[in-house]
Amino acid sequence: MAQKPSIPKGTRDFNPLEVSRRSYIIDTIKKHFELYGFMPIETPSFENSETLMGKYGDEGDRLIFKVLNNGEYLRKVDSALLADKDETKITSVISDRALKYDLTVPFARYVVQHQNEIAFPFKRYQIQNVWRADRPQKGRYREFTQCDADVVGSDSLLQEVELVKLFDDVYSDLGLNGCTIKINNRKILAGIAEVIGAQDKLIDFTVALDKLDKIGEDKVKQEMIDKGISRDAIDQLSPVFALVGTAQEKLVVMKELLQTSTTGQEGIIEVETVLDHVSTLGLKTTLLDLDITLARGLNYYTGCIFEVAAPHGVSMGSISGGGRYDDLTSIFGMKDMSGVGISFGLDRIYLVLEELDLFPETVRAGVQVLFINFGKQEASYCVDWVFRFRESGIKTELYPDDAKMKKQMTYADKNAIPYVVLAGEDEIAAGKLTLKNMLTGEQQSLTPGDIISRLS
Amino acid sequence: MAQKPSIPKGTRDFNPLEVSRRSYIIDTIKKHFELYGFMPIETPSFENSETLMGKYGDEGDRLIFKVLNNGEYLRKVDSALLADKDETKITSVISDRALKYDLTVPFARYVVQHQNEIAFPFKRYQIQNVWRADRPQKGRYREFTQCDADVVGSDSLLQEVELVKLFDDVYSDLGLNGCTIKINNRKILAGIAEVIGAQDKLIDFTVALDKLDKIGEDKVKQEMIDKGISRDAIDQLSPVFALVGTAQEKLVVMKELLQTSTTGQEGIIEVETVLDHVSTLGLKTTLLDLDITLARGLNYYTGCIFEVAAPHGVSMGSISGGGRYDDLTSIFGMKDMSGVGISFGLDRIYLVLEELDLFPETVRAGVQVLFINFGKQEASYCVDWVFRFRESGIKTELYPDDAKMKKQMTYADKNAIPYVVLAGEDEIAAGKLTLKNMLTGEQQSLTPGDIISRLS
Repeated sequence: MAQKPSIPKGTRDFNPLEVSRRSYIIDTIKKHFELYGFMPIETPSFENSETLMGKYGDEGDRLIFKVLNNGEYLRKVDSALLADKDETKITSVISDRALKYDLTVPFARYVVQHQNEIAFPFKRYQIQNVWRADRPQKGRYREFTQCDADVVGSDSLLQEVELVKLFDDVYSDLGLNGCTIKINNRKILAGIAEVIGAQDKLIDFTVALDKLDKIGEDKVKQEMIDKGISRDAIDQLSPVFALVGTAQEKLVVMKELLQTSTTGQEGIIEVETVLDHVSTLGLKTTLLDLDITLARGLNYYTGCIFEVAAPHGVSMGSISGGGRYDDLTSIFGMKDMSGVGISFGLDRIYLVLEELDLFPETVRAGVQVLFINFGKQEASYCVDWVFRFRESGIKTELYPDDAKMKKQMTYADKNAIPYVVLAGEDEIAAGKLTLKNMLTGEQQSLTPGDIISRLS
Repeated sequence: MAQKPSIPKGTRDFNPLEVSRRSYIIDTIKKHFELYGFMPIETPSFENSETLMGKYGDEGDRLIFKVLNNGEYLRKVDSALLADKDETKITSVISDRALKYDLTVPFARYVVQHQNEIAFPFKRYQIQNVWRADRPQKGRYREFTQCDADVVGSDSLLQEVELVKLFDDVYSDLGLNGCTIKINNRKILAGIAEVIGAQDKLIDFTVALDKLDKIGEDKVKQEMIDKGISRDAIDQLSPVFALVGTAQEKLVVMKELLQTSTTGQEGIIEVETVLDHVSTLGLKTTLLDLDITLARGLNYYTGCIFEVAAPHGVSMGSISGGGRYDDLTSIFGMKDMSGVGISFGLDRIYLVLEELDLFPETVRAGVQVLFINFGKQEASYCVDWVFRFRESGIKTELYPDDAKMKKQMTYADKNAIPYVVLAGEDEIAAGKLTLKNMLTGEQQSLTPGDIISRLS
């Protein structure tokens, strides 16, 4: 019986226009990655489960898509275990592989596995799909594309400066003006936790602080209290909640607050260095701002962290993020390899460009010229020219059947083909072709050579 | 504890050179797909299992990678079933999704699902990964890339002609001269089965015949006998086994053999028409040959079928294939939608180009200029120029730390960076930069503007 076709929740088909627009974003990002000296690598869609599991916290583990082993995968499962239906114990026995959840952990795996072939510092970019069994919502899919650039093997803050400039170059080139690049530093967060005496609750503290934008000051404070951070400690946070002004002005306040924390001071100097450098170099269309409440969920960050917000008025979570991690490769046995990287979320950038109507008109797939098919003999005459047009780099198509003229014209219209060529008896006799501009309706009898030089 | 990192069997990491070379092949194929009027679409990596299962035969079903459901996936499995450990019954309960096995079935699903948005005939191309749990060997991976172009909604033989020309254009453009495009027609095979009285064993017959290249005439005949085809019938096949000469000469023999089969005659006329058209248009570097033993495994083909063999001397299975299918979309409830398509196997083409040393030298990732880092002050001077170089489209990098000169030069060497820029005290004082050609060793003191115009 025929099935009603559909696709899994959270996944998408892309039509020709969507593919072209996605390619436009990818090509722009790629261009700048390469100008900055990043080199492309790719890793498999699925990794050995043990490479991924345990790297993203319990929530991450839950959201990783596992691939079922082939063949008689149940045979080696203990029958008692099976009777218990305890997935937490059975999954690792019936599934050796899992779809990748981000590009960073597979990249760390790649660096360790191929360390002898790599000249460090290693600057790589990677544009690939990742999968998460998350609840789908606007801008969140179960299969989506990340565009990452990372440098490992250098702890120079110049990298952070370059990455900020890279954000600015990409978003400016996409015409997405007015983005805000938020910067913070994990050491500043650690410093705050230290000076308010909550260093043993650093994670609870940052998780709560991270929500300031979404739930407001009162609820953040309540969450901190719920997590066992003292009211006294929270009262000391008031300068943090009250922070206003330029990044430089905020730094003055934070320096004061963190004067007793060595770690905190380190974080401030790092951010200050990046801000100074960037301000000397200048940014085109983005604003670099210090956001002390920025925490970034992932545990592996240790230094500067970044997030990019779309221009005001666009309701969309962050469209890019990143940060410095000092020890990511150690999970695969390679110590002291500092890294820093950023990630562009292709799918969200797409939605923002679409909402703001920023895709150039020229970004579209499709043929430039359709030859109308009047019948066997005319088609034979045309087909030769079709191939010569293509040789000249013109995207050309001959309608495959001698369908009614109206049907062929509708086809050209629906596919937004800008020109059609008509060649009937008269044209064949004269060695010419009639070129019709589908937008203006204008028709001209021309030699094929004239048409080629006009369109190529 | 640190894990020794590895990747699943049959999958691969791609380093920067490999990614660049793969992109070179993909870009070439894409260029010609678009010149021929094909438009890009993309479908999800995983489909609902029922979309894929049962479409590729039992063997295919076995080789499809299934994605495990998330959450408490065992809860709804019948306990008795579980105790039996019968995977054939349990898999469909614990796995709703499966990784795509090819691009054709998801394309058929796409056409049916989006039929109201599509202007037929629909010419689409699709370049995406597919997954098969096959035993890995040379040129066969568990994750690989297919580059497909199909037209649905037209039964014109012009499409077949175009696809042959497309093969020729792509392989000629890749410099892979001397490929053979083999053509056959399922109706010819059906005709042969008919005239030898084995029409009820058509599949067994074609499967056996398909192996002629690999196992030879005697073993093919033995297989046919084993499958119950009579010795008498097989004796009538001798003209098929003895077929030599040009495609046109072979057609003469086949016409004679198939004169009593209407279906067979139809197939011959189809092939003849394609051959005639192609011979009028001409091919650049490939040879179009009739191969009566070509069967193509997939059941959905109904008319002309194609396969491309690498040039003589390269041991590699087919590097492209394709054919006409008259009713593919009917599995999803859409009748009478004839289609024809071809597929390029990226991974095999890669291996062939590598074996024959056909990748252009210019195909490589990586920066053009490395600025040597002599320390804080010098780096500050350089960084400004680094960004101006990038603005001019030059892939530029500043070594991030003031490491030893030797280390920085080794980095340039290892990454095959063609130029380094040196800027010490003297250069800064003179407002110049020293450009070193890493290949020749030649050094020149130039203004930054001179270097930019030389390299961009």
